Order: sequence, then structure tokens, then C-alpha cells
Amino acid sequence: MRTTFHTELDELMTDLARMARLAAQMVINASIALHQSDIARAGLVVADRDQMNAMHDETERRCITLLALQAPVAGDLRVVVAALHAVGHLKRMGDLARHIATVARLKHPNPMISGKVRPVLARMGLLAGQLAEDAATAIEHQDPLSGCRLAAADGEVDALLRHLFGILFAEDWSHGVEQAVDAALIGRYYERFSDHAVAIAQQVCYVTTGWVSEPEDWETAGSPASCAP
Amino acid sequence: MRTTFHTELDELMTDLARMARLAAQMVINASIALHQSDIARAGLVVADRDQMNAMHDETERRCITLLALQAPVAGDLRVVVAALHAVGHLKRMGDLARHIATVARLKHPNPMISGKVRPVLARMGLLAGQLAEDAATAIEHQDPLSGCRLAAADGEVDALLRHLFGILFAEDWSHGVEQAVDAALIGRYYERFSDHAVAIAQQVCYVTTGWVSEPEDWETAGSPASCAP
Repeated sequence: MRTTFHTELDELMTDLARMARLAAQMVINASIALHQSDIARAGLVVADRDQMNAMHDETERRCITLLALQAPVAGDLRVVVAALHAVGHLKRMGDLARHIATVARLKHPNPMISGKVRPVLARMGLLAGQLAEDAATAIEHQDPLSGCRLAAADGEVDALLRHLFGILFAEDWSHGVEQAVDAALIGRYYERFSDHAVAIAQQVCYVTTGWVSEPEDWETAGSPASCAP
Repeated sequence: MRTTFHTELDELMTDLARMARLAAQMVINASIALHQSDIARAGLVVADRDQMNAMHDETERRCITLLALQAPVAGDLRVVVAALHAVGHLKRMGDLARHIATVARLKHPNPMISGKVRPVLARMGLLAGQLAEDAATAIEHQDPLSGCRLAAADGEVDALLRHLFGILFAEDWSHGVEQAVDAALIGRYYERFSDHAVAIAQQVCYVTTGWVSEPEDWETAGSPASCAP
């Protein structure tokens, strides 16, 4: 019974890692759609989000079934509770990638990113995808230090968001209000996406140590207050 | 044993309702701080956020203890799982209210909201506070219809966000890029705050029926894509 249970827990972790890789793929595709005004690529993200939601519902249902049938305690209970949290973060990452893809679709065929914000948003998209990949690896390896490592990488995303706001608020910004607002919101979506990846790694830390590391600043770094130049 | 367990579940619901009322108070105070450039009021929100985080940690710990010691099944398990989800939503609502208060602090003594966006953001703040109050009532009354009712009220928040973007992107917008970006992000915070209140009511629906109602559009209504005029 317990052997079967632990096999089920392993399968749960494998599926969470798969979802994290899907999130990585979604945010990378959303970035390509945005930068290349690629409407077909944006459509892929929308379709992947449906798949992510289906995986969320299925994985959450399995977590609840495990709680009901196995009544896990101690470390096993931590795994299931962490999976319940992680699956919510992954669903939200899918939503955020879809938001970015939806902007690309609505602005098509006009490129919506101009000037100095272009490389900043490109870098944020790359980092967001990498953080989701790292979260997948953290889940697979059950690495207790991954939470701190991802939080450090997430610091670059936060710094880029502050830099982005600096560009938008500078006197030489010449691309108008609408592009500025779009860029600010897209930057914010990347930043939140990255926060969720860090939160997943922190759940891995909780699974392996019973303790959640939570740097004070990771969840507030995206506020306009902290991003203002 | 079971009587004690059900007493503990009732206490859990009472504490969740208390947290929802704290979230309501936070977002109302953040709105006052923003509109009246009231730095002391903004400080209250920051302090309340610490209290919210402490209540989150304590309530989550109690949920996990209940799972470990009581191994609930069926309806009782649904209550604990819903509480685990709700407590995460409430913490995030506290973060969002704090984001708004932090803007008010950083812009002090300059009022940061001008012209036509002022009444729109004021109305969004009022509705966000009301939705958090409604979520508290839904928890207390275990009302299975509250999810749908709150989702309907949340529709007005989404419509206001679209209206806000219309104002910011109009040719007669004369308050510059920085105010536009700040207003867009604050509108987005109110909209996400309201989404979380709806999600809590949906968890109440899940507790009472075993089924989560999730209107397709409530979670994406705040994207710049859907908000563009």
C-alpha cells in the first residue's frame, strides 16, 4: 500500500515537473509571438493554456484523492500539500503567459514593442522561461536549496522591471501612453510569472526541510512603487 | 473527537472570515491613502499586511495539522482543502492592498490620481472592498451561490478596468506616461484583488457542493488585451 503510495507521489512530482516545463514553453512562445508579431505562435500559447488547466484540475483531484485514501502524515503530507500549492502556481503561470500571447494577438500585425524596452522585455521573457525550467528541475531533484537559488535569479527579473519603468518614465520616451502601459503590464506579467516559479521552488524546500524560505522582497518587487525610477 | 474536529473547522471558517474582513479594511484604507494622499493611512495598510501574513502562516499550519491528526474525508476534507486555497488568496489580497498603499506613500505629498481616472479608481476600490466583505459573509454562511454572485459583481470591476484603459489611451489624456502607468497598475491590482475574492467564494461553493464554478472569463479580464478600448 505504502509502496504504491510512494509511486503515486513520484508520479505526482513527475507531472508537476511536466507542467513547469509546459509553463516554460508557454512563456517562451508568448515572448516570440510578442517580439515577432507571430499570431500562430500566440495561438499555440492559448491552446497550451487549456492543456495546463486540464492538467491542473487532474493533478489537484489526485492530490485530494491521496489525502482522502492515504491520510499521509509528516513528510508525505508535506509533499501532497506542496503539490496542491504548486499546481495553483503553475495554473497561474499559464494564465500569465496567455495574457502576454493575447496582447500579441490583439496588436497583430503591428509590432507592439519599440525602442529601448524591446531588449528588456526580451531578457525578462528569457529569464522567466529559464526560471520555469529551473523549477521543473528543482521538483525532479527535490533540491532544498533551489528556493534560494531561484529567488536570486528572480532578482534580475525584478531589476529589469525597475529598469523598464525607468525607460517608460524618462523624458525621451516617445512611443506614447498605450505602448508604455502595455509594456508595463507585460513586464509585470513576466515578473509575476517568475515569482510563481520561485514559489514552486520554495515548496520544494518545504517538502525537503519542512520550512519555507520566503525572501521578504520577492513578492512585492513588481509594485509600481518599487519600480519607479 | 469528531465534535472537537468540527469545532476546529468552525473556528477555521471564523478565522478565514476575519481575514477576509481584514483584506476589505486594507483595500479601503489603501484607497483612502491613495485618494487623500494620507501617509498615515498607508502605514496602517503596511502594518495590517504583516498581521495578514501572520494569520496566513498560523491558519495554514492549522490546516496541515488537521490533515495530519484527523485525516478528514469527503465533506470535511473539502473544507480543509478549500481553507488551504482560501488562505493563499487572502494573503495575496493583502499583498495587493499593500502595493496600492505603497504607491500612495511614494508619491506623497503629490496626489497621483488626476482627471477622469479618479472616480473610476475610487469606484474600483469601493467594489474591491465590498467583494472582500461579501467573501467574508459567504464563508460565514457557507453559501453555495456566493461564487456566482461575486463573479457577477466582479464583472463591474472588469468593466471599470476596461473603461480606465479607454481613458488612458484616449487622445485627450494629458497627465503623462507615469500617471497612466501608475493608474493602469493600480487598476490591475484592484482587479486581481477582486478576482481573489471571487475565488474564495468559489471555494465556498466547492465546500458545499464539491464543485467549483469558474466562469471562463473572470481570470483573464484584466489583461491589457481585453482591456484595450
